[in-house]
Amino acid sequence: MTSTSFDTRHIGPGEAERAKMLAECGYGSLDALVEAAVPSAIRVTRDLDLPSAASEEEATAELRALAARNRPMTQMIGLGYYDTVTPGVVRRNVLENPAWYTAYTPYQPEISQGRLEALLNFQTMVSDLTGLATANASLLDESTAVAEAVTLMRRASKAKSNVVVLDAECLPQTIAVVHTRAEALGIEVQVRDLLTGLPEEFFGVVTQYPGASGVLRGRGFYEAVSEAAKAAGALYTVAADLLALTLVAAPGEFGADVAVGSTQRFGVPLGYGGPHAGYIAVRSGLERSLPGRLVGVSVDADGNPAYRLALQTREQHIRREKATSNICTAQVLPAVLAAMYTVYHGPDGLKSIAERVHELAAGFANALRAGGVEVVHETFFDTVVARVPGRAADVHAAAREAGINLGHIDADHVRVACDEVTRPETLAKVLRAFGVDSAQEAAKALPSGLVRRSGFMTHEVFSTHRSETSMLRYLRRLADQDFALDRGMIPLGSCTMKLNATTEMEPISWREFAGIHPFAPAGDAAGYHELVRQLSGWLAEVTGYDEVSLQPNAGSQGELAGLLAIRGYHRANGQPERDVCLIPSSAHGTNAASAVLAGMRVVVVKCTAEGNVDLDDLQAKVDTHRDTLAAIMVTYPSTHGVYEHGIERLAKIVHDGGGQVYVDGANLNALLGLAKPGEFGGDVSHLNLHKTFCIPHGGGGPGVGPVAVRAHLAPHLPNHPLLAEAGPETGVGPISGAPYGSASILPISWAYVRMMGAKGLTAATEVAVLAANYVAARLSPHYPVLYTGQDGLVAHECILDLRGITKETGVTVDDVAKRLIDYGFHAPTMSFPVAGTLMVEPTESEDLAEIDRFCAAMIAIRHEIDEVAAGRWTAETSPLRGAPHTAAALAGAWTADYDRELAVYPSGVSRRTKYWPPVRRIDGARGDRNLVCSCPPLNSYEG
Amino acid sequence: MTSTSFDTRHIGPGEAERAKMLAECGYGSLDALVEAAVPSAIRVTRDLDLPSAASEEEATAELRALAARNRPMTQMIGLGYYDTVTPGVVRRNVLENPAWYTAYTPYQPEISQGRLEALLNFQTMVSDLTGLATANASLLDESTAVAEAVTLMRRASKAKSNVVVLDAECLPQTIAVVHTRAEALGIEVQVRDLLTGLPEEFFGVVTQYPGASGVLRGRGFYEAVSEAAKAAGALYTVAADLLALTLVAAPGEFGADVAVGSTQRFGVPLGYGGPHAGYIAVRSGLERSLPGRLVGVSVDADGNPAYRLALQTREQHIRREKATSNICTAQVLPAVLAAMYTVYHGPDGLKSIAERVHELAAGFANALRAGGVEVVHETFFDTVVARVPGRAADVHAAAREAGINLGHIDADHVRVACDEVTRPETLAKVLRAFGVDSAQEAAKALPSGLVRRSGFMTHEVFSTHRSETSMLRYLRRLADQDFALDRGMIPLGSCTMKLNATTEMEPISWREFAGIHPFAPAGDAAGYHELVRQLSGWLAEVTGYDEVSLQPNAGSQGELAGLLAIRGYHRANGQPERDVCLIPSSAHGTNAASAVLAGMRVVVVKCTAEGNVDLDDLQAKVDTHRDTLAAIMVTYPSTHGVYEHGIERLAKIVHDGGGQVYVDGANLNALLGLAKPGEFGGDVSHLNLHKTFCIPHGGGGPGVGPVAVRAHLAPHLPNHPLLAEAGPETGVGPISGAPYGSASILPISWAYVRMMGAKGLTAATEVAVLAANYVAARLSPHYPVLYTGQDGLVAHECILDLRGITKETGVTVDDVAKRLIDYGFHAPTMSFPVAGTLMVEPTESEDLAEIDRFCAAMIAIRHEIDEVAAGRWTAETSPLRGAPHTAAALAGAWTADYDRELAVYPSGVSRRTKYWPPVRRIDGARGDRNLVCSCPPLNSYEG
Repeated sequence: MTSTSFDTRHIGPGEAERAKMLAECGYGSLDALVEAAVPSAIRVTRDLDLPSAASEEEATAELRALAARNRPMTQMIGLGYYDTVTPGVVRRNVLENPAWYTAYTPYQPEISQGRLEALLNFQTMVSDLTGLATANASLLDESTAVAEAVTLMRRASKAKSNVVVLDAECLPQTIAVVHTRAEALGIEVQVRDLLTGLPEEFFGVVTQYPGASGVLRGRGFYEAVSEAAKAAGALYTVAADLLALTLVAAPGEFGADVAVGSTQRFGVPLGYGGPHAGYIAVRSGLERSLPGRLVGVSVDADGNPAYRLALQTREQHIRREKATSNICTAQVLPAVLAAMYTVYHGPDGLKSIAERVHELAAGFANALRAGGVEVVHETFFDTVVARVPGRAADVHAAAREAGINLGHIDADHVRVACDEVTRPETLAKVLRAFGVDSAQEAAKALPSGLVRRSGFMTHEVFSTHRSETSMLRYLRRLADQDFALDRGMIPLGSCTMKLNATTEMEPISWREFAGIHPFAPAGDAAGYHELVRQLSGWLAEVTGYDEVSLQPNAGSQGELAGLLAIRGYHRANGQPERDVCLIPSSAHGTNAASAVLAGMRVVVVKCTAEGNVDLDDLQAKVDTHRDTLAAIMVTYPSTHGVYEHGIERLAKIVHDGGGQVYVDGANLNALLGLAKPGEFGGDVSHLNLHKTFCIPHGGGGPGVGPVAVRAHLAPHLPNHPLLAEAGPETGVGPISGAPYGSASILPISWAYVRMMGAKGLTAATEVAVLAANYVAARLSPHYPVLYTGQDGLVAHECILDLRGITKETGVTVDDVAKRLIDYGFHAPTMSFPVAGTLMVEPTESEDLAEIDRFCAAMIAIRHEIDEVAAGRWTAETSPLRGAPHTAAALAGAWTADYDRELAVYPSGVSRRTKYWPPVRRIDGARGDRNLVCSCPPLNSYEG
Repeated sequence: MTSTSFDTRHIGPGEAERAKMLAECGYGSLDALVEAAVPSAIRVTRDLDLPSAASEEEATAELRALAARNRPMTQMIGLGYYDTVTPGVVRRNVLENPAWYTAYTPYQPEISQGRLEALLNFQTMVSDLTGLATANASLLDESTAVAEAVTLMRRASKAKSNVVVLDAECLPQTIAVVHTRAEALGIEVQVRDLLTGLPEEFFGVVTQYPGASGVLRGRGFYEAVSEAAKAAGALYTVAADLLALTLVAAPGEFGADVAVGSTQRFGVPLGYGGPHAGYIAVRSGLERSLPGRLVGVSVDADGNPAYRLALQTREQHIRREKATSNICTAQVLPAVLAAMYTVYHGPDGLKSIAERVHELAAGFANALRAGGVEVVHETFFDTVVARVPGRAADVHAAAREAGINLGHIDADHVRVACDEVTRPETLAKVLRAFGVDSAQEAAKALPSGLVRRSGFMTHEVFSTHRSETSMLRYLRRLADQDFALDRGMIPLGSCTMKLNATTEMEPISWREFAGIHPFAPAGDAAGYHELVRQLSGWLAEVTGYDEVSLQPNAGSQGELAGLLAIRGYHRANGQPERDVCLIPSSAHGTNAASAVLAGMRVVVVKCTAEGNVDLDDLQAKVDTHRDTLAAIMVTYPSTHGVYEHGIERLAKIVHDGGGQVYVDGANLNALLGLAKPGEFGGDVSHLNLHKTFCIPHGGGGPGVGPVAVRAHLAPHLPNHPLLAEAGPETGVGPISGAPYGSASILPISWAYVRMMGAKGLTAATEVAVLAANYVAARLSPHYPVLYTGQDGLVAHECILDLRGITKETGVTVDDVAKRLIDYGFHAPTMSFPVAGTLMVEPTESEDLAEIDRFCAAMIAIRHEIDEVAAGRWTAETSPLRGAPHTAAALAGAWTADYDRELAVYPSGVSRRTKYWPPVRRIDGARGDRNLVCSCPPLNSYEG
């Protein structure tokens, strides 16, 4: 329809640029380069079977038609998901602003201060509301947060028991997720009505607060649970609703060790279940056991306060097989939305929303009673369960007629959950559905001893931005401190920072996608189901697998799901003893962590000097573990960025040993259209839709990690207790709280595949490989390229080896990474997979001008290093160590051994449009020693 | 529904802040302050009769319901309006980005380089495509652009004639607008088929290219017109379609002196007629006669290239009664959209769109002929007129059945216009509507001699940003150079830079508002008509008038419409001799310019030393001109920012003299809910919806300037030849090309009134008055406040008198304005209405923290001035004259008499989040001497 097809907008280099790049690489055509780089044995022989590419307008029209098949009713189902109003200023300037959504995880804190501050607001808000010392920067959802709390409690508990107790009032999806995870870890889950007491031995207990039925018990109940846990040497986790916590006692006030939950109802759309930010907070003393990301406060080289991720050494990718969690990422974008909702409303605003919701619910309960309907619980926050013997179906039907979904329980009970958008008129309709015409009046139904008396969110950031103008400027100020894809290239190896096109992003704001409750009747989500069906089919086609589950809401969860499928398969075959997972030494740490969480034993396989899996060692390990071999996890192309030629032989060795082959899809951007893991030996892969399939990184989440399997593993994919069609009956249980995980961002990947088509996807892969080889060719005279494959070619990324440079000059990868900021770039991946190296992945979306700008910066930096070698500066006194340089540093006295001009305007940097980092190099260790994870006072910022 | 009502988000200061501000002003309550400030005689006695305030969600729901009543069909009507695809990356990052839409007109060029570059792209594109030397930065729409061309031709022509000739192929709305404007100016308009030749004497001739019927004549025709014009000493204007110009000869190539038209089809939604950017371009030698805004290239104090508005002295507000145009503003936001569309597509992309459109149209014509339908013209670009004797109504009906609007001509002819979104399937449906089932094949139908051979858009900016990633970064880089409301306060007196709330802005992106053709059947726009009805009613209520026309698409056009209504009234009363318009000496220049354009003679009335209208002089002038008095134009509160007490007496004097009272609504933000111009003596006012009613300034347009009148003037409001319901049958004709002007942005003002309600609007006025008086109170110890009213109070703005300071120290208002940039502010209005002063209008939307930050900056600047007075620096060597300071200036050698720290981080400026201007002070005069109004080569930017 338009003059240009989408692939020409997605792929940076046009024909002329490609020709130049090929010439630099010494190839005459893209075909020739690809033929040389990719082993012919694994090359596909036919084009991908996908619908032909749609234009942007056609794809939008199709998505509109799919959206029209969804039915966003008034949602009063509850169970952890509530309708909410996203403030317009937050939606437009965060959710719909590339400065926020195209950012990467804040590993380079000097250029991530804006989103780090937003996350610190999040942590402060959660910590204040839960009354616990330290909250992290979010988890994937409430149900997995409970699962993380369970393993945290097991680690921290002194009890010898293997039992965790879940109150029967816990959310059903939470109970199911905990079951899925506990089974593999050998944890016994007891679900019981805690009013009947606790077992003698247990390491942890979880209560839902308020309960799934809405019930709030008396304060004595929660205190008794806490005391019983203490007595047993166990820990106590409270899964708490943050909005309720503005009115009732904080978990920290009645002895909870851990609080978890969802922040969805703080302005994040329902989105058919996700993405939303889960949260976790712990009492003092447990902060170093927290899974996930934690933002802390430190100082920069000039002594000014600065934010950074704290305790990075705690991350599982360092611990590998000793991992206690496989969580890599957070839900940064939803967490920022939730944080900004609380900044916008402030403590008084939140409390007034909660009071209105509560008074409506209590008034509704009174009206029900007045109308002769029994209300099950006397005390509750926002949710009322009514007893209507034999009439539940009729009530649901009448409510549906009025456009309202109520919560299903059984034939005799109906759940009615109120939320921020509930209006008296809505409840009047619900009353009519019950056959009641009593008048409602605002009322109260909180247990009196439970009313909150403590303050929260007292930091001034929560009371400063009450006008939209002030809020807008705050969001802009934060965004302006950060470097995201909208400013320049982010050449992070293994992270695939490519275009997140507007046409892909726009549909997630549509109410027809945003307004669906995950437990709404299936018919309300017909558009979602069709989109899931189509996208799953396309993903199966491009990977060569038979079935796909879109439920895992992060790559790590996809890995776990894939390994649990393997585990289930061996058990179904009567081989439960197969529990050895082979992992090459070059693997991403998450692989090993996921294997541990899947109940497997990790055995490491060596790599050769060329960086490939050592097939002799593999054979030996397979021989050693022949009877207990469960699987191998292998990344392809390898984490070294090389197409290994032995992949088929590797698969054969493992299969012959009775094992399954797990191909990590992290590097799928080097394969689409060229080779299919499901055809060259893989039994299962997870994909990262937030890499290859254009879901933006959001500053560190959300992601989607579908798991794709061959047919024999399909019976062991995830399923869901509340939606039969979400997975096989024989499945391993749910891996996420919602049936389709982060459903509302699936349209992004759908649109990408739909608009690229087979040719576009293949061209993207080819240009990604071309770009990496071009960078390798340009930079190899200046930095050794560590590993290459056949014909000296790399795949879609290349590793620059700085170890020699460091040894010779003292200049480190850190110095180069921070100096790149002065040149206007985000650093490549540092010291992964090999310490002392930089891994560069340009992706297909960067045009030649930007790639050349990057190469020029790297070469200029190499010249600076040469000056260190030549003795002009020491490493310590060089601009490399001084980097990054702020504008503020220019204004004061200048004592460096180089001049200001060189510091901030090295060659190629625009004087008009330079990106200025807000802080200088940050002292990480100091921040870890003095852990501060809540907002510091504002006056500490101006030095 | 939400915890806070919209007025608390729109109005910055909350209760506690208001109390502090009142205390500073010496009043105990807002009521007391307002009572003291506003003359009791004009105070309203009852609350505004408006619907009670809706929440943001309720207003959105109501707008969705109104939108649902519009019917966006496939639009093939033509007549200057075409469907088009707005690139997603441009929509999201310009149209939906506050950094672009909340900016002001770039009068402070140092902090407007981004949008100035965007406008330079616009000018370059127009100049290239039209083949003329100089294009301006846009006009209001195509029809008014033709009207401007007519007056330009009259000014520039040597012919003695008073006749302008319009080809009968000109657009009907254009012909009507020219008639409206020409009548008042005594210009005779001859509309004739130019194939029949030209009259003997005329000063100008206009052809439409292609014609309204789609026709493209042979090159000889256009050349003959040009030669005939030259021979008569007349000028030749071509109203040209820019998309067609990618394929056919440029007007400059066949002798046109002027080209005008619309840039709507370059990515700007139909929006029921507007806003769109009109354009005008002129041959060399005429550039100093161009109306409107012109961006030019100059250099800054460091010698780097920098953009600015060129030839500002050409503006009518300097010339006042010698004005040749009353155009004040441009359509900056639509112009930026159009420019970015062309940057995104480039010359090849535009040409390929044009070729596809043309080939579809030509193929369609052939298919019609093959099916036995006569096609009227052999040669055309995108529009085909078919002759179907007696069958036109049937064809239209059948097309409507298929969801398509065709162009109405008469009972025997149908017009079919193709555009960027036309598909072969669409044309197949149209063929069926004609009863034709011939196959279509791509074809050509351009006159062979007319095919374009010259290149265009050769500047590299048009070939650099082909990928979405590159485009995104370009837009961000430009936006980052500018200072808009999303960064900080813009305290421009008389401009009312208040919140443009997201909830107000979002609906303009909805397809139901964006996809309506202005000449679609009225039933397709039922939602628009209801919105217009409601908004007109509310505006009448708040101003105290009886009828409102929303057609004028700028304040200047509202003025003209109001004066034409007065002119029409006097003529209808048999008093055509009444043509004297009294204008106080303090009036905005546009008032006088509008009066001239309305055919009136301007007589200036003096002001008293207190700044009020001198009622004695007024009486004298009325007496002098008693028989010819037409009107007075008076601004209330006065342009001096004071509630004058004599307003009722003023009105009585004029009414007694037989004149009408025009109350300029520029300062309505000081009146809403407190007083009504229609009740204190006004007969007519124009309002600026882009001031008081929250339409964003868009960097210098679009605006909406409704005209409101008492009942006796209502028969003389604008109407429209193509839509009877758009105005009275007895009306003065159209003032804009579209029946409701800039219809698609009316939802912004609708939402504002709907969400504020009577109380909110009144509170906004009161807080605006409070804020201005607070600033006056804070700053009067440091800068004299020039005029005050009763009790020493100002209205909603205050004038700081720097004349004494300048005399004493040499520090000018310019120095203070530029120094404010270093402090992170946009300057107040400079030297209006009094040279050597600054006029500050904080509006109700700024919270106390921001107002205090501004006051602190002004006080700090005053201390710097004191240092000049004390001899620490001369004015020339002071940081005031050195301002603004760039980051780049810090990096080099520093020779100033003050240090870097003082230059860029004066007190109160954040080191983390400072706004950095991209250039230093710009040399305006140099740019005017060496007029460069197209893009300079990229390499000129890096110095």
